[in-house]
Amino acid sequence: MSNPNREKLLSIAFDEIYHNGYYASSVDKILKKANMNKGSMYHYFKSKKALGLAVIDEKISEYIENKYGKLLFLEDNYIDEMFKLFKDRENFDFRVGCKLNNLVQELSHKDDDFKKSLEKVYFRFEHIIKLVLDKAIENKEIKCDDTKKLAIFTVASIEGCLGTAKKSHDGHLFIDCISQLEIFFNQIKI
Amino acid sequence: MSNPNREKLLSIAFDEIYHNGYYASSVDKILKKANMNKGSMYHYFKSKKALGLAVIDEKISEYIENKYGKLLFLEDNYIDEMFKLFKDRENFDFRVGCKLNNLVQELSHKDDDFKKSLEKVYFRFEHIIKLVLDKAIENKEIKCDDTKKLAIFTVASIEGCLGTAKKSHDGHLFIDCISQLEIFFNQIKI
Repeated sequence: MSNPNREKLLSIAFDEIYHNGYYASSVDKILKKANMNKGSMYHYFKSKKALGLAVIDEKISEYIENKYGKLLFLEDNYIDEMFKLFKDRENFDFRVGCKLNNLVQELSHKDDDFKKSLEKVYFRFEHIIKLVLDKAIENKEIKCDDTKKLAIFTVASIEGCLGTAKKSHDGHLFIDCISQLEIFFNQIKI
Repeated sequence: MSNPNREKLLSIAFDEIYHNGYYASSVDKILKKANMNKGSMYHYFKSKKALGLAVIDEKISEYIENKYGKLLFLEDNYIDEMFKLFKDRENFDFRVGCKLNNLVQELSHKDDDFKKSLEKVYFRFEHIIKLVLDKAIENKEIKCDDTKKLAIFTVASIEGCLGTAKKSHDGHLFIDCISQLEIFFNQIKI
């Protein structure tokens, strides 16, 4: 897993696929950037598809875990801290959009292996939010009958707000949009 | 505009692009399905890009207008009727997802002409929802300080909820997800 050539290839593929989409990404271009040949790639990844799946299972999964997993270490003020994190988009490229959602839109209906890998990351994202909402209820911050559904909606809203910003290449739209979700959360605060 | 060959080509291109994405759609395949040759296509559309833009400007625009434009004819009970329409997804292919959002995710960051065409349809969608929210306020159904932002968020949520359903090929998830938005709207009802 920690072979530096494999890691280099994977990082470059992650970047290429994020910016161009999976189908439009060229293995030749990835290899050229990595300064490697096809033989060395096939040593680590049997096919372009195997490389794409590894990007999702390792890179996108790690991205979501690093960004949202922090929420699991909070000990108080869950809802406000959650929104602070949602809005913290330093270095986020609003023009290209969400690493996870871009691939869901491109691949989920085209290939069952991609669908399963993407779902797994998405479910983890939703589960992290559900755990935070459960803690917020325990902490008497909000009232909510079904944190699973609210978590699914919260993640969907983030993806939708990122899409709205992407369509205009404008990060301010994301903040305006996600602030509406925050207004709604304020309504269920105790 | 109403030439039957042009219309046929456009309808087939709309279907191909919806199912495969713009870049993965093949002009040859579209022409074969339309039983036409390249010459006749170039008579109506100078390039694949011109065809793609016409799909957005005419077909996707018309789809959004036909689906959501009805809301502008309501005379009462705006919010409940709006949610009834959001949830009415007969014949909607949740696996392939939203005609507008699929292309935003694929194209908005790649080409400025596509970005502008997609934005125009998106803005119209948001504007229709804003007009409905304004009427709902006038009708004393809801209270809201900024219907423009709420409309932007409402459209973003619909797109997000459709994406959530797409990732699992499951329309029930859309209903669960959009019902959370409805719960939030219930909180601002007067």
